[in-house]
Amino acid sequence: MNTFGKKLTLSTFGESHGKALGCILDGVPAGLSIDEAFIQSELDRRKPGKSELETGRKEEDKVEILSGTFEGLSTGTPIAMIIYNTNQKSKDYDNVKDLFRPGHADFTYFHKYGLRDYRGGGRSSARETAARVAGGAIAKLMLRELGVSIQSGLCEVDGIKGEVQDFIYAKTSKMYALDPHMEAAQEAAILRAKNNHDSVGGVVLTTATGVPVGLGEPLYYKLDAVLAEAMMGINAAKAVEIGDGIASTHLKGSQNNDAIRKEGFTSNHSGGMLGGISNGDTIIVKTHFKPTPSIFQEQQTITVHNEEVNCNLKGRHDPCVAIRGAVVCEAMMALTLADMTLLNMGKKMEHLKNIYKI
Amino acid sequence: MNTFGKKLTLSTFGESHGKALGCILDGVPAGLSIDEAFIQSELDRRKPGKSELETGRKEEDKVEILSGTFEGLSTGTPIAMIIYNTNQKSKDYDNVKDLFRPGHADFTYFHKYGLRDYRGGGRSSARETAARVAGGAIAKLMLRELGVSIQSGLCEVDGIKGEVQDFIYAKTSKMYALDPHMEAAQEAAILRAKNNHDSVGGVVLTTATGVPVGLGEPLYYKLDAVLAEAMMGINAAKAVEIGDGIASTHLKGSQNNDAIRKEGFTSNHSGGMLGGISNGDTIIVKTHFKPTPSIFQEQQTITVHNEEVNCNLKGRHDPCVAIRGAVVCEAMMALTLADMTLLNMGKKMEHLKNIYKI
Amino acid sequence: MNTFGKKLTLSTFGESHGKALGCILDGVPAGLSIDEAFIQSELDRRKPGKSELETGRKEEDKVEILSGTFEGLSTGTPIAMIIYNTNQKSKDYDNVKDLFRPGHADFTYFHKYGLRDYRGGGRSSARETAARVAGGAIAKLMLRELGVSIQSGLCEVDGIKGEVQDFIYAKTSKMYALDPHMEAAQEAAILRAKNNHDSVGGVVLTTATGVPVGLGEPLYYKLDAVLAEAMMGINAAKAVEIGDGIASTHLKGSQNNDAIRKEGFTSNHSGGMLGGISNGDTIIVKTHFKPTPSIFQEQQTITVHNEEVNCNLKGRHDPCVAIRGAVVCEAMMALTLADMTLLNMGKKMEHLKNIYKI
Amino acid sequence: MNTFGKKLTLSTFGESHGKALGCILDGVPAGLSIDEAFIQSELDRRKPGKSELETGRKEEDKVEILSGTFEGLSTGTPIAMIIYNTNQKSKDYDNVKDLFRPGHADFTYFHKYGLRDYRGGGRSSARETAARVAGGAIAKLMLRELGVSIQSGLCEVDGIKGEVQDFIYAKTSKMYALDPHMEAAQEAAILRAKNNHDSVGGVVLTTATGVPVGLGEPLYYKLDAVLAEAMMGINAAKAVEIGDGIASTHLKGSQNNDAIRKEGFTSNHSGGMLGGISNGDTIIVKTHFKPTPSIFQEQQTITVHNEEVNCNLKGRHDPCVAIRGAVVCEAMMALTLADMTLLNMGKKMEHLKNIYKI
Repeated sequence: MNTFGKKLTLSTFGESHGKALGCILDGVPAGLSIDEAFIQSELDRRKPGKSELETGRKEEDKVEILSGTFEGLSTGTPIAMIIYNTNQKSKDYDNVKDLFRPGHADFTYFHKYGLRDYRGGGRSSARETAARVAGGAIAKLMLRELGVSIQSGLCEVDGIKGEVQDFIYAKTSKMYALDPHMEAAQEAAILRAKNNHDSVGGVVLTTATGVPVGLGEPLYYKLDAVLAEAMMGINAAKAVEIGDGIASTHLKGSQNNDAIRKEGFTSNHSGGMLGGISNGDTIIVKTHFKPTPSIFQEQQTITVHNEEVNCNLKGRHDPCVAIRGAVVCEAMMALTLADMTLLNMGKKMEHLKNIYKI
Repeated sequence: MNTFGKKLTLSTFGESHGKALGCILDGVPAGLSIDEAFIQSELDRRKPGKSELETGRKEEDKVEILSGTFEGLSTGTPIAMIIYNTNQKSKDYDNVKDLFRPGHADFTYFHKYGLRDYRGGGRSSARETAARVAGGAIAKLMLRELGVSIQSGLCEVDGIKGEVQDFIYAKTSKMYALDPHMEAAQEAAILRAKNNHDSVGGVVLTTATGVPVGLGEPLYYKLDAVLAEAMMGINAAKAVEIGDGIASTHLKGSQNNDAIRKEGFTSNHSGGMLGGISNGDTIIVKTHFKPTPSIFQEQQTITVHNEEVNCNLKGRHDPCVAIRGAVVCEAMMALTLADMTLLNMGKKMEHLKNIYKI
Repeated sequence: MNTFGKKLTLSTFGESHGKALGCILDGVPAGLSIDEAFIQSELDRRKPGKSELETGRKEEDKVEILSGTFEGLSTGTPIAMIIYNTNQKSKDYDNVKDLFRPGHADFTYFHKYGLRDYRGGGRSSARETAARVAGGAIAKLMLRELGVSIQSGLCEVDGIKGEVQDFIYAKTSKMYALDPHMEAAQEAAILRAKNNHDSVGGVVLTTATGVPVGLGEPLYYKLDAVLAEAMMGINAAKAVEIGDGIASTHLKGSQNNDAIRKEGFTSNHSGGMLGGISNGDTIIVKTHFKPTPSIFQEQQTITVHNEEVNCNLKGRHDPCVAIRGAVVCEAMMALTLADMTLLNMGKKMEHLKNIYKI
Repeated sequence: MNTFGKKLTLSTFGESHGKALGCILDGVPAGLSIDEAFIQSELDRRKPGKSELETGRKEEDKVEILSGTFEGLSTGTPIAMIIYNTNQKSKDYDNVKDLFRPGHADFTYFHKYGLRDYRGGGRSSARETAARVAGGAIAKLMLRELGVSIQSGLCEVDGIKGEVQDFIYAKTSKMYALDPHMEAAQEAAILRAKNNHDSVGGVVLTTATGVPVGLGEPLYYKLDAVLAEAMMGINAAKAVEIGDGIASTHLKGSQNNDAIRKEGFTSNHSGGMLGGISNGDTIIVKTHFKPTPSIFQEQQTITVHNEEVNCNLKGRHDPCVAIRGAVVCEAMMALTLADMTLLNMGKKMEHLKNIYKI
């Protein structure tokens, strides 16, 4: 239940304030060049504290590969990676030990399991996504060799929508903004909320180009369904759209169908999929993140002893989780596409005959 | 890849114009009273041709249980169900044999597998959802004994939103409309599109009440993530929202967090989940369906030989797939919650000790 | 839990005296020619009543394909097959309704599930293996195109060992005997037991030739481990040996290691595997079957009400289940090797690059 | 593919001469007291170099828990454990870098993956079983609270059979011998082989007592089938017997059936299972280990360039792997029974109703 994927599987472990967190990525084909610097650079993109738009926590997030590689190449055996926790201030959480922070998983974990690691949210902390980014980085390396590349960026913050989708700009933006013209307004909204001890939501657009026709396994491991699961499973995600998504439902069929010509589809309302299988066009997914539940205003809650109290959180938190969420969306997109690529092998008898004995 | 769920698993088979379609539902606890009339009644709700708002196809959809029950009770062994195809007019599809219908899976199936059953979309047809409804009906029977009930209805058609959510009214509405006041306008939009040989989209709201705290398995089988997968995997679904969904992203954290009092949560922006685990409140999911891709206007496409052609579809199709989609959403909600219920057993040592030997 | 395999999955359903039994075989590559006559011929080999060495029950075991094929080829979608029960004499089981037949699963099913279908053993009946043979037949068709062939036969009955392993002879022997010289003695032992209202055990040798190097997934889906699971899971199996098996443990390492020369291994003590991965040599598995538990002598047992009684079984039963077990062993070998073949796709980056986009 | 189990899953990673090896154990119920000293003591039992009967390698095998526990209790989240490699002498393997050691997985890994970590067998080394023992120790802690205990010992070495089964004695024997009277002869056989630069096989008997009726999931996750998979998957295992195993096949049905009386079964030929489900009697499994393939005599093999050579191994190896195999057999038995225990939850509606909401 802590494993994502079917043939390329990512199993993660670790709590926010435990000794370490990490993952096992199993199913990586042998012979993939493992670029450790790239993996670290992906973690650095997710790392908090890069600007005043993020939590002030300093986490080193130094990743170490423990297994599965030999002389720089993957060997086909499980790749384990570990990130030791180094900057945990568990004291910050003493005051929430006995109460349930609103909007957090404290309440549900406690009731499900009968106990909980209250320090920093324990397992439910978004800190776990560091392991996803590590695994996703290797998936990206694999996809890169196959000509697939993944981009992301914020297309909306606090209801302020961007129109331009400039993924190259987003890479350099401290808030991964897709629209350079709207960035200032979006940034101002984040800082305004931060100054008010509050938080805002945001929307991440993730795309993949170079994806061949045929990825996605009907009928219960469709590409769109698994991307929806992958994105909705990220902390704070509340909605997922494929392609035009909700906008599609306002069109007529005659407007929404993507016509097909020799050179390809004339439009991409579908977001690169038909019947849950990639159609060769750009894969498009939007993930909507709620405002960070950790805010510094007084809130009403109850204790584990069912007493009503007001809670005042301490700690250091992102005013807009969607920013760092963008890097996680890329990781989940990469893991999904790499898994689908492996599952797609063996779909035709002619393929089996060709490589069965090599 | 044709199986949904982990402990309660639904495996389906069958094509639109094959001999039969059906499913194996595995993992049903022993001792559940299997009400066959209820299962049939659920299929009847999904059955096409009940009004002029649906396809004119007449499918009897008579379901037969083949195994897994004895003297009216489930035995703990797999429950197989079969629905024979009786009213298939394969001739209607002769003219699409060699071309790819826009907006359909023809293109992707053909390229993925190298061949395809072109009759009525074959495996990619929404006809397969009859098997989901059969399996979902048994999941509902199980959940009913545990006090959980599931409702659905259309909250939007062709961009015309309802405001009232009257699930009792929706049961009697021929288009499962939730808002009696908006039904006439929504119906008119459907008929207008139909008369124009076109189609419209719609949005289904699905809820579950009576769900206890604790359903959902962190971190990669969260309740919200699996519901997103379940709903997005339904034919024509393009977006899924949990709770307030996209509206949440326009709120501040201080507005969106659900405060907790002794008697429960004071609001339900979250849609009944925290950290991917049910919190005891009503589960709320919205599924957005695109307009039916089968329309009767001339469309541009190519043939399997890569020749550009105009296609004119024949056959009988729903002008708004969201209507019958509502019944399928309920089935997927039921299957998800029943699976989560079974997975939740054994979460605590004290439970194991209590029933280990009984 | 009623599914075998990971990428090629066989899910079976049905009870001995229910309406029908059958299976869904999912994961068959598209483009495989489906020879229905061959599938039926495999079922005929398993069918009871072919000689006086088997149960006198007449089961037609007519198999019908319901889905997953089109114009004679597999389409990549699930292949469902059904066998209707036609000759069930449930009356024979009225006298065992309330008691637990010794050596059977009556006791354990009743206590596990709290109820049971007592007619003919219900789900625990070896009749279920008909579905395995149907699925195994398709796996054989797939393997045949890849140059792999599977053989089986009885190498021991009631402790009477054969020495010769003549698989061609076995095909024509009514008891699938591998050693023509020992067949008469083995047959006499079976008939002697039958006349004494008793039963005997037997040992099935199953081999596969033409298997390439590389099948088997370390470390928890090894070829030897999965074959052990596959064979031990057949009704009445009590031991499984790979290659020389137990005899290996009596050798020194210097005797047991298979030396390697340019042209291949100089011996095959290992049974065609090293480290759980096929080495290109013949796969060798021995499955040991206990004597049929259904005997016609008075036996001591208890009722569901915990009263001690003597039971006298009626019905028609095989005096040596190993005979028909041979056909089932072949099916399980075929399903295992076909699954391993599909899992093996994507083990190397170079393979991915070659067929990723085709 | 590096994961064992379905609801309690053990995923392992690591190579013999890599940085570390370890595991993630997922699915442990919350509230289990985690006795770290016990886990370490189990690893110490498996640790090499305890006597002259084992390899002279000194591996510290110090295990560290990284996640999943809080204040001494399991939290329901994944428990990761790590063992750093500290005494690896990779130089010993320089001479086998380019050749395939007979009886080892070198040949198959190289051909399957196109490259291999040749140091100490890499992933195929029995060193990986340390991770199984760590995971198995936690499974034992869980089972212990439920009244289940597991024992093992050697019942045969180099063909020298013991008759007595004294599990208490075995605990103190340096070779885990079950029969004190035969131990000297068995030990002499091991030392004789060692002095001859050779190795011997052995047989491990593993039992579990206190197991309730009902463990095992028909039809493709039967208790006997999964135990066969679990044991056969241990390095060097070549045969598995359940209960009387092969001896059963030499009995008549009237001798082999275990009669049932009010107080229980009058014999236990079956090894504690009927129809793949535990019957409340002692679970009995025998695992047959081949002689260690690493011997110090000259052997014929080929290089990765397909040249015939004679190989002379260096390094330090067990003359009888069955000894340390006994501890691994216990771990696999514990993991299997704990998994089956969790899977068994939710088999009856009445159980669901009882603990659904707690």
